[in-house]
Amino acid sequence: MTTVDLNSDLGESFGDVRVGDDAAMFPLVTSANLACGFHGGDPVTMLDSCWLAFEHSVTIGAHPSYRDLEGFGRRAQERTWRELYAEVLYQVAALMTMGPTSGGSVKYIKPHGALYNRVMVDPEQAEPVAAVARNLQLPLLGLAGSALHRAAESMAVRFVREAFVDRAYAPDGTLVPRSEPGAVLTDAAAVADRALRMVREGTVEAIDGTVIRVEVDSLCVHGDSPHAVEMTRAVRDRLLGAGVELRAFA
Amino acid sequence: MTTVDLNSDLGESFGDVRVGDDAAMFPLVTSANLACGFHGGDPVTMLDSCWLAFEHSVTIGAHPSYRDLEGFGRRAQERTWRELYAEVLYQVAALMTMGPTSGGSVKYIKPHGALYNRVMVDPEQAEPVAAVARNLQLPLLGLAGSALHRAAESMAVRFVREAFVDRAYAPDGTLVPRSEPGAVLTDAAAVADRALRMVREGTVEAIDGTVIRVEVDSLCVHGDSPHAVEMTRAVRDRLLGAGVELRAFA
Amino acid sequence: MTTVDLNSDLGESFGDVRVGDDAAMFPLVTSANLACGFHGGDPVTMLDSCWLAFEHSVTIGAHPSYRDLEGFGRRAQERTWRELYAEVLYQVAALMTMGPTSGGSVKYIKPHGALYNRVMVDPEQAEPVAAVARNLQLPLLGLAGSALHRAAESMAVRFVREAFVDRAYAPDGTLVPRSEPGAVLTDAAAVADRALRMVREGTVEAIDGTVIRVEVDSLCVHGDSPHAVEMTRAVRDRLLGAGVELRAFA
Amino acid sequence: MTTVDLNSDLGESFGDVRVGDDAAMFPLVTSANLACGFHGGDPVTMLDSCWLAFEHSVTIGAHPSYRDLEGFGRRAQERTWRELYAEVLYQVAALMTMGPTSGGSVKYIKPHGALYNRVMVDPEQAEPVAAVARNLQLPLLGLAGSALHRAAESMAVRFVREAFVDRAYAPDGTLVPRSEPGAVLTDAAAVADRALRMVREGTVEAIDGTVIRVEVDSLCVHGDSPHAVEMTRAVRDRLLGAGVELRAFA
Repeated sequence: MTTVDLNSDLGESFGDVRVGDDAAMFPLVTSANLACGFHGGDPVTMLDSCWLAFEHSVTIGAHPSYRDLEGFGRRAQERTWRELYAEVLYQVAALMTMGPTSGGSVKYIKPHGALYNRVMVDPEQAEPVAAVARNLQLPLLGLAGSALHRAAESMAVRFVREAFVDRAYAPDGTLVPRSEPGAVLTDAAAVADRALRMVREGTVEAIDGTVIRVEVDSLCVHGDSPHAVEMTRAVRDRLLGAGVELRAFA
Repeated sequence: MTTVDLNSDLGESFGDVRVGDDAAMFPLVTSANLACGFHGGDPVTMLDSCWLAFEHSVTIGAHPSYRDLEGFGRRAQERTWRELYAEVLYQVAALMTMGPTSGGSVKYIKPHGALYNRVMVDPEQAEPVAAVARNLQLPLLGLAGSALHRAAESMAVRFVREAFVDRAYAPDGTLVPRSEPGAVLTDAAAVADRALRMVREGTVEAIDGTVIRVEVDSLCVHGDSPHAVEMTRAVRDRLLGAGVELRAFA
Repeated sequence: MTTVDLNSDLGESFGDVRVGDDAAMFPLVTSANLACGFHGGDPVTMLDSCWLAFEHSVTIGAHPSYRDLEGFGRRAQERTWRELYAEVLYQVAALMTMGPTSGGSVKYIKPHGALYNRVMVDPEQAEPVAAVARNLQLPLLGLAGSALHRAAESMAVRFVREAFVDRAYAPDGTLVPRSEPGAVLTDAAAVADRALRMVREGTVEAIDGTVIRVEVDSLCVHGDSPHAVEMTRAVRDRLLGAGVELRAFA
Repeated sequence: MTTVDLNSDLGESFGDVRVGDDAAMFPLVTSANLACGFHGGDPVTMLDSCWLAFEHSVTIGAHPSYRDLEGFGRRAQERTWRELYAEVLYQVAALMTMGPTSGGSVKYIKPHGALYNRVMVDPEQAEPVAAVARNLQLPLLGLAGSALHRAAESMAVRFVREAFVDRAYAPDGTLVPRSEPGAVLTDAAAVADRALRMVREGTVEAIDGTVIRVEVDSLCVHGDSPHAVEMTRAVRDRLLGAGVELRAFA
């Protein structure tokens, strides 16, 4: 039987500011990438999100970011190896004690926003992130073939490959930048078809019509609009209807 | 002809995080209390909000806060006179250059959140806020009879009295705390009636049925939910329909 | 044989900004209260300080603060029980993974600055701090008879009593506020005498000449000036010379 | 008569944290680059520094930075044109009201730390900084021939050229990176000689012995150690002794 993980960025609210519809998303996914305070997710939200994950049997991943609450972690920053190592370790460590089963609640690491984009292509920032995963004995979630993937392999860190159900792919397998037309897909049915094809056949149709391979252990769905909730539901229903088992990878 | 101002807290978004529906609110109000970066409103949002205000002929007020982006300015903080004076001056000054008519765009000051609540009752924090208004020759917006009102009077700063259309009043004229049942009104028609009565008769029915006096130069409407937009529209339509002129006080 | 602990606030530097002379202080103390990022102590400094403590066989305590990097944690802030619990847990947890012996490096908690002063007198803020100590099975360090002491006792958390060698005491056993004349002692020899008397006789001479009792498991010495290093050295030498053993309580 | 300006980064303290010896430096320089809150310089320090500058007849420049209090502004960050424009405008604007002569106190802009380094070489970040100077009708201070210099010229913004008295130059006129041996000069007498030669002859001896041209309207001296104070004094005395007039350029 085919199985796949559904992951989503959750727990990103802070203070009075609500980000995404976590109440709707937790019942739909199998893994939650929880913000750790640097781009969202104040400590109370971290606490609440860990409990929500526990109640819905959702696996918890840490979702560390550059320190940039004002910019929601969307802007790259220069860091030395040691700075980035320490900052990522700090965030993951803080999340680790927030769960009902203290110390054992975080099962993987997936970087957020600008940090994610950077460590996919930059070995110098990928390495310290992988080193945190190595230190804490946690797998990393990201794009197959990325700089983070290579850093993980070199340190014998388990690397889990994800694909994006609502993003257009270039023929070379990279994501089409959000700024370009057609980069973000919004038709729930089409996205659901795409998700099933990714899982069943390991392929996706690139933006120019080419069919390319995509290796996927986890599908990333976005949770920050009501529309996204509908799309996630469609993906989930299509996969379950086709006999695919949804199960956390960790 | 009776005139009144409609003010709302706007420009509180930052980064990817959207707070409130500013596009819907700007056409409805006459004065916008714009966040200055300490609880919301990053510099780009400040810039955009000043232009939006300009386009909609909405008067700009500065909406300074305790430094607390993570808590959206909802948590009181201790400050010396000098600290609070300098922090409020800093925020108002920054906003003053953001508008199309540099230096002349900010027309009044209304403190935000926990700072607002504190300066209504605490003379020690009210004084430095009033001193900033004095220094910059700007009026203050707040509750009649409050500590800020008294501080403004003692410094010959113009004080503009506001009332809250969607909040229950205690018989002594103070607001019923949000945590108590019935503190927040949500029926748009009832709120609109209430607004008209405040303006026409200068009275409001307190939570125990007593009719009390409320002196009002400006009505505060909240803009942080679609429901609030509907309520603001109802208030605006009721007032205009009754021949009340909506006009910024400054 | 009499033993006592010498604790100091260390690891409070961040970025290019140096706070205190940690290199001089680590060899002198037995316990280090390490900043956790909210008032000082960026993640790299936390990492470095844990290693310094390890090298000098100094016991590590967590030194959590209100979030106030700009004010060095010197300004009290309102918090709900849940907010303060989550924020303190976040900081202590982050520090816990920074040490060479991951997870086991932090041996106690001592709040910083305005948070320290507040939890000495305010049961509502003392309780969530004690609850973190309870959750993580760590002792608390503070003033005997304080609100934090009572909260710790009610939760069966070990409470370690400290005294301040360079601060004047009022006849009722509280500290004379820094703003008053004579509140801070600077003569190294006099301070060393005072420290020995505290340990040997359990007494201190109050500012009015009264001799009062002071129960002490740990002496707090400050490390943020060259003068403080000299004073710490004098205290240490006097105690060792009198046959007192310096040993971490945890 | 030859004249030159002496500029220094001042007003960078915040909270309890002291950065540099401002009391010693203000009497020695003619222009003070004052921090604006993003890497140092809380609002109270900004207020105090403006007054100190006023008392010592020192010209005030704004010293804006990336938002990075934790890293003292030493780490480059990605920004869009609009983000950087708004952030720099925000900081300069805030400082502009802090002085005794409100609105007219800031006479120039010099970016700080990583932002300075970036805008010397990157036209995309240099442009929005120059646009702020253009908007506020203020000159910019930086390295001759830099990207910021070119951006300033293209916008008809006055550009003031500075040289660093205590830094080694490469034969191509760029600064030797701090990480390389010999990059930072510490001998006060040698530095003073160098300063005089820069001003008198418009030349400096590069690290390989080559004599290169350096065009200088202002000499930058650093103020963040007692040693730097001594060096600044030596530079000042040498220049005055040689009949050079020290005068702010703005």
